[in-house]
Amino acid sequence: MGQTGAMSLTGADLLVQTAVLNGVDHCFANPGTTELHLVQALDRAENMRNVLCAFEGVCSGAADGFARMAGRPALGLFHLGPGYANALANLHNARRHHTPMINLIGDQASWHLEADAPLTSDVDLLTGWTGATLRSGGASDTGRIMAEAVKAAVDGPQRIANIVIPADHAWGETDRSPGAALPQAADTGPNPKAVSEAAAALREAAQSKEGAALMLGGPLISAGSLRLADGIRAATGCEIFTTRAARLEMGQHLPIVSELPYFPQPLFAALADVRHAVMAGAEEPVTFFGYPDTPSHPLPAAAQRYVLSDQNQSLELALEALGAELGVLEGGSTERPAGDLSQLDRGPLDPRNLGQAFARGIPEGAVVVSESITSGGGYRALAAHAAPHTLLSVTGGAIGGGLPAAVGAAVACPDRQVLSLQADGSALYTIQALWTMARESLDITVVICANRRYQILDIELQAAGIELSDTGSSLTDLSGPHVDFTQVAAGFGVPAVSVQSGEELEAALARAAVEPGPNLIEAVMVPAIQPSPGFGKIA
Amino acid sequence: MGQTGAMSLTGADLLVQTAVLNGVDHCFANPGTTELHLVQALDRAENMRNVLCAFEGVCSGAADGFARMAGRPALGLFHLGPGYANALANLHNARRHHTPMINLIGDQASWHLEADAPLTSDVDLLTGWTGATLRSGGASDTGRIMAEAVKAAVDGPQRIANIVIPADHAWGETDRSPGAALPQAADTGPNPKAVSEAAAALREAAQSKEGAALMLGGPLISAGSLRLADGIRAATGCEIFTTRAARLEMGQHLPIVSELPYFPQPLFAALADVRHAVMAGAEEPVTFFGYPDTPSHPLPAAAQRYVLSDQNQSLELALEALGAELGVLEGGSTERPAGDLSQLDRGPLDPRNLGQAFARGIPEGAVVVSESITSGGGYRALAAHAAPHTLLSVTGGAIGGGLPAAVGAAVACPDRQVLSLQADGSALYTIQALWTMARESLDITVVICANRRYQILDIELQAAGIELSDTGSSLTDLSGPHVDFTQVAAGFGVPAVSVQSGEELEAALARAAVEPGPNLIEAVMVPAIQPSPGFGKIA
Repeated sequence: MGQTGAMSLTGADLLVQTAVLNGVDHCFANPGTTELHLVQALDRAENMRNVLCAFEGVCSGAADGFARMAGRPALGLFHLGPGYANALANLHNARRHHTPMINLIGDQASWHLEADAPLTSDVDLLTGWTGATLRSGGASDTGRIMAEAVKAAVDGPQRIANIVIPADHAWGETDRSPGAALPQAADTGPNPKAVSEAAAALREAAQSKEGAALMLGGPLISAGSLRLADGIRAATGCEIFTTRAARLEMGQHLPIVSELPYFPQPLFAALADVRHAVMAGAEEPVTFFGYPDTPSHPLPAAAQRYVLSDQNQSLELALEALGAELGVLEGGSTERPAGDLSQLDRGPLDPRNLGQAFARGIPEGAVVVSESITSGGGYRALAAHAAPHTLLSVTGGAIGGGLPAAVGAAVACPDRQVLSLQADGSALYTIQALWTMARESLDITVVICANRRYQILDIELQAAGIELSDTGSSLTDLSGPHVDFTQVAAGFGVPAVSVQSGEELEAALARAAVEPGPNLIEAVMVPAIQPSPGFGKIA
Repeated sequence: MGQTGAMSLTGADLLVQTAVLNGVDHCFANPGTTELHLVQALDRAENMRNVLCAFEGVCSGAADGFARMAGRPALGLFHLGPGYANALANLHNARRHHTPMINLIGDQASWHLEADAPLTSDVDLLTGWTGATLRSGGASDTGRIMAEAVKAAVDGPQRIANIVIPADHAWGETDRSPGAALPQAADTGPNPKAVSEAAAALREAAQSKEGAALMLGGPLISAGSLRLADGIRAATGCEIFTTRAARLEMGQHLPIVSELPYFPQPLFAALADVRHAVMAGAEEPVTFFGYPDTPSHPLPAAAQRYVLSDQNQSLELALEALGAELGVLEGGSTERPAGDLSQLDRGPLDPRNLGQAFARGIPEGAVVVSESITSGGGYRALAAHAAPHTLLSVTGGAIGGGLPAAVGAAVACPDRQVLSLQADGSALYTIQALWTMARESLDITVVICANRRYQILDIELQAAGIELSDTGSSLTDLSGPHVDFTQVAAGFGVPAVSVQSGEELEAALARAAVEPGPNLIEAVMVPAIQPSPGFGKIA
């Protein structure tokens, strides 16, 4: 058995130490037998922080949240194909918003693959679904592989790098030393031609009084980008939209911009008059799903499209260049309406007063992780008036990203409070994240929006004109029995309370804000008000 | 919007009604927006039972458990690629033991795929990882696709059939009617040449006094198969081994056979003297993982191999033919040692008295679902002496199959009690299964073996000579904080108690046996006795 001396390295050591040398120093892990030497290497590497998660979907969602806040990739550690399979849904989201991530997947010893042991599978099919696949040639090759993975994660185009490492490459010894970082391509800003075309379009729209939109998206919409965009808006009269940004700065210190709506009817309405659309880190908007008699693309066919920059380029550099071309020297010129956070409707909780209490309760500098479309709308409407904070949304549509992302954000930002605004249905996909919150004493307050429905399905069923029988309705109903989130949280080691009114929620948030470590607040909502459908024949 | 009249069918209706006509009448579902018309069709189909699960891994594990007990496939319903991704780990297990399953995966409307909306992904990579992929050509083609899926699931070679159905094929109308079942190939029994070769080998071994082994495996090892194998053993002196059977009949009414050990050293020891090995529904045994200086194949190179039948053939027909060739007309001739279930060691729980209490508590006709290797060994050693019962094991090594399989078994067998013997670490992967147990009032008693470790990793670390630092050890430690399973269960609606001694466990099992609906018993175990490693240099 390869018991190593004090000075010799295993392939696993070379791999992990190369990661640390390249600034990758956090690992969200759920290891198995084929990863034991990786565990050993992670343990004995200096400056590596290891966080155990009780389910792989928590690892991948946490690594995503970490990278969005830290601006650099973390490691995920997974046990062969089936362990990695459990991580996939949250990797889908990360892929969609271009989060850098490096996944370590232990594989069978290279010579044991042909035995087709029970846990053996075609791992490459799964890694190909999320990003790049890298395989080492042996124990001495693991450093090169890790350096390549760092470069791939940071420079794209695929930001998810998957390292498949056979157990014998991990336990084998090597005389190689961990290498310095590969040079990374500097972001040189947007293409000058794209800048001048976008500027010309916005100028033309201003002169002709045609509708123009500046669409912001990508991994980070910073305060600086919002101020630059605001200056461009003041100079040209364009509208500003944000589109499923992975990370968005928010609050009363910033210009107010619009978020593109989720449901199709308001989405089409928002863009109906646009004739010039400049995409800055954003992709052309599409409907989330296809609906009968509804086109996929809400931007009118008559609108001219311009791509100022893509998701892998710096949004701030792109907007700086556009602003300079337009002669906008400083942003923030728009008048800002006074925010109204004075209102708190007492009594039973609905999306409106839940949002009021939540927005009022955001401490300055908090990170808000929101995975709540139907119940979180009230917060979103008030977020621009709340204290300065950072918003992480689930951008790829895969369910279960919220609680894990809160874990990762809290690990990345130990000095900031993390607030998780979490729908009840989606909370259940990765509920094990609560255990890691307790284990790591993370300063997270989880607010569960307990409407006890898959309400988004009710809205879509109504729009589609489908009426289910009582039995069929049970396929969207989480109330038989309803989950008692306070007990589930306590079982995982997270103190919890249940509230039923706006004033109770506000008081619970205030208490949680001064308590260290994680807390959970179950916000039990009244039966849903009939939603405005947001659907209908559009084209 | 395609609001359908009373008599017209949607593509979804045609799909679902074809399933029912072919005997596929249970669906374990976690739907989303692209599956709304499938939900409608499932709701209005006569004789279809729909079971909502709060996570897709519960759906797939439940469909597996259902099919193992019912002997026919169930449907799983999943939301696009990311929803299906969450089902993969338990599909891996199902693939490994050839369980028939049919998965419905809603996809974007066919014309919406090009928009590459956020939830769009390359679904075929994922379905290719588990089995066959079937796509409809339109709303009128869904019946043909379902009939093909039933045939694939029942006749193999791949028993997992995945139907990817675009939303517009589900909502589109059709004038087709659901069709009768496709003819299925009858199992004609084993190849006569294989039978005569296997018989000759066993006769030769008996004459030459060389070691011979009859290895049983596959989807079902029935009481009849065990009695036939016992007769062959009596006539020829061969040993009988079971190898990771998906379903195994167990108890004091049956001949005693050996299970192939999990850890490598006892596995190699068990097979060291075998010179003639007959595989009946079993694959050649391999070590679960590759270890330094340890071959992949524990069967000696000198042993002659014979394949009597594979996993897709009837084991019982194969053994009947082999017995007939050997002139064994009835089985059960071996003397059966009296089973000893009289012992119940009082006091703190360890694998031994946990196993005693559990084995004594098995009611006749129960279904035992075991996902516990390190803590469940005590039960396994006594299972042959317990009341007649059926054992479902996790065969593919992917973690998180136990609780969902218990759900599926209980749905398939409403008149049988289901006992789930469940390790704590693996319980956490699909803990949401508890909610479906409560929702469906399933008669399941879950015993959580709470050793508060990933103990199997501790054993493997010890064998590999790896000592971790205190920080590193935390990557195998579930005690900081330990999960309080009684609170988690109560939160999901399942009544629960915690016990700490053999006598308390026995009393709790007795109480649970007379209570309807689900129960959970957290069996808190004393810190593990140093395990015998079961490793070492073998070759």
